[in-house]
Amino acid sequence: MLYIVGFGAGNHGGMTFDAEAAILRSDIIVGYTAYTELLRKIYPHKEYYCTGMKQERERVEYALEQAASGKTVSLVCSGDSGVYGMAALTLELAEKMAETDIEIVPGVTAALSGGALLGAPLTHDFAVISLSDLLTPMEKIEKRLECAAMGDFSVVLYNPSSKKRADYLSRACDILMKYKSPETVCGYVKNIGRDGEQSRILSLNELKNTSVDMFTTVFIGNSETRCIHGKMVTPRGYRNV
Amino acid sequence: MLYIVGFGAGNHGGMTFDAEAAILRSDIIVGYTAYTELLRKIYPHKEYYCTGMKQERERVEYALEQAASGKTVSLVCSGDSGVYGMAALTLELAEKMAETDIEIVPGVTAALSGGALLGAPLTHDFAVISLSDLLTPMEKIEKRLECAAMGDFSVVLYNPSSKKRADYLSRACDILMKYKSPETVCGYVKNIGRDGEQSRILSLNELKNTSVDMFTTVFIGNSETRCIHGKMVTPRGYRNV
Repeated sequence: MLYIVGFGAGNHGGMTFDAEAAILRSDIIVGYTAYTELLRKIYPHKEYYCTGMKQERERVEYALEQAASGKTVSLVCSGDSGVYGMAALTLELAEKMAETDIEIVPGVTAALSGGALLGAPLTHDFAVISLSDLLTPMEKIEKRLECAAMGDFSVVLYNPSSKKRADYLSRACDILMKYKSPETVCGYVKNIGRDGEQSRILSLNELKNTSVDMFTTVFIGNSETRCIHGKMVTPRGYRNV
Repeated sequence: MLYIVGFGAGNHGGMTFDAEAAILRSDIIVGYTAYTELLRKIYPHKEYYCTGMKQERERVEYALEQAASGKTVSLVCSGDSGVYGMAALTLELAEKMAETDIEIVPGVTAALSGGALLGAPLTHDFAVISLSDLLTPMEKIEKRLECAAMGDFSVVLYNPSSKKRADYLSRACDILMKYKSPETVCGYVKNIGRDGEQSRILSLNELKNTSVDMFTTVFIGNSETRCIHGKMVTPRGYRNV
């Protein structure tokens, strides 16, 4: 049996009861090293198998093999198991292997946990976009930023930066400003639910000149988003409907 | 103290530990009748205050007043507290009232819980759009559908139908088909995590001719989404990057 578990931001409170049940039921927990370290603090007596970044395929194959051999396995993802998570790759690789029972356990993705810390940025229609061009052509990412801005979506950016992509957030802000005002209310949250958690509300123009790291999630409001008592608030609808 | 709690789909397993803690700590649970009924099954001994649809403002004011009078209150939302939830309206109305401590507790929204049931439709960039034109002009909704399709986003539709809006999903599919193939892999889930849960995978063209109700969440794939062993799977990236 293989569970693909989204365990939320990494604190116990943000995890679902189903996620904990899957982890407790498992003989082995498989995941990216940084994530299994978070879980080890909560469940120190479980057996873990960890691999580094970019070893997703190897990790998923290991989880599938262990499950096929009769073990109960949790393949863990921070946030949700689907959103930029391991569920799709597992279903793709499982196609070519011995049949295994797979259950996907959803979790609170950073758009939701980070949004709650900032206020209520995602009350209305929104788009989620990753700025990582590791598996996606840059033109595709830029097109999506432009379309999201054109549609006046609130936008959440995942993977907004890395050492190799230090200027990506700034470029993304430029594209968004083709259609969004430089005064658009924005926010970001770093280390959601973990040590060193911090958040900030700022304008799109300020965001353009701000450096964030890869543990940050960025929120860009729609045309109605306001800052109320230091919170980022997108209303439920449009005035004058 | 006022908690705005996203309690997930409505089954206990899909709730976070923080959501349960807020509910157990509260003197009174405030919410839309259909949602408080779900919670009453799990927490039968709590005190509830329920109001009907379209009485959001009255409900939020009641919750704020109770909290201001010194009670601990949970204002509950199905799914997430932010995404089409009550967090924004509460922060807006709280602006004009006596200061109250407000904590927003995020939850697993239907895009994630429904996605997990269908497979992994939201692995990559996606847009969430509500088809309800109660508080949003129809032209704005149509523009967003068009922009989301143009950007090759996977799309999740909330509130895809109601008695007054029986043809909205069909019209939305027509707009999406300006840029998406009629063969695009789609899916929908009804009554997620509740009695009568059901899901189906189908093409965009089939979806256009399908009736769904207001308890249904609809998923439209991107150009890479495939159906694998009856599951809707959007890959992590694009081939040939």
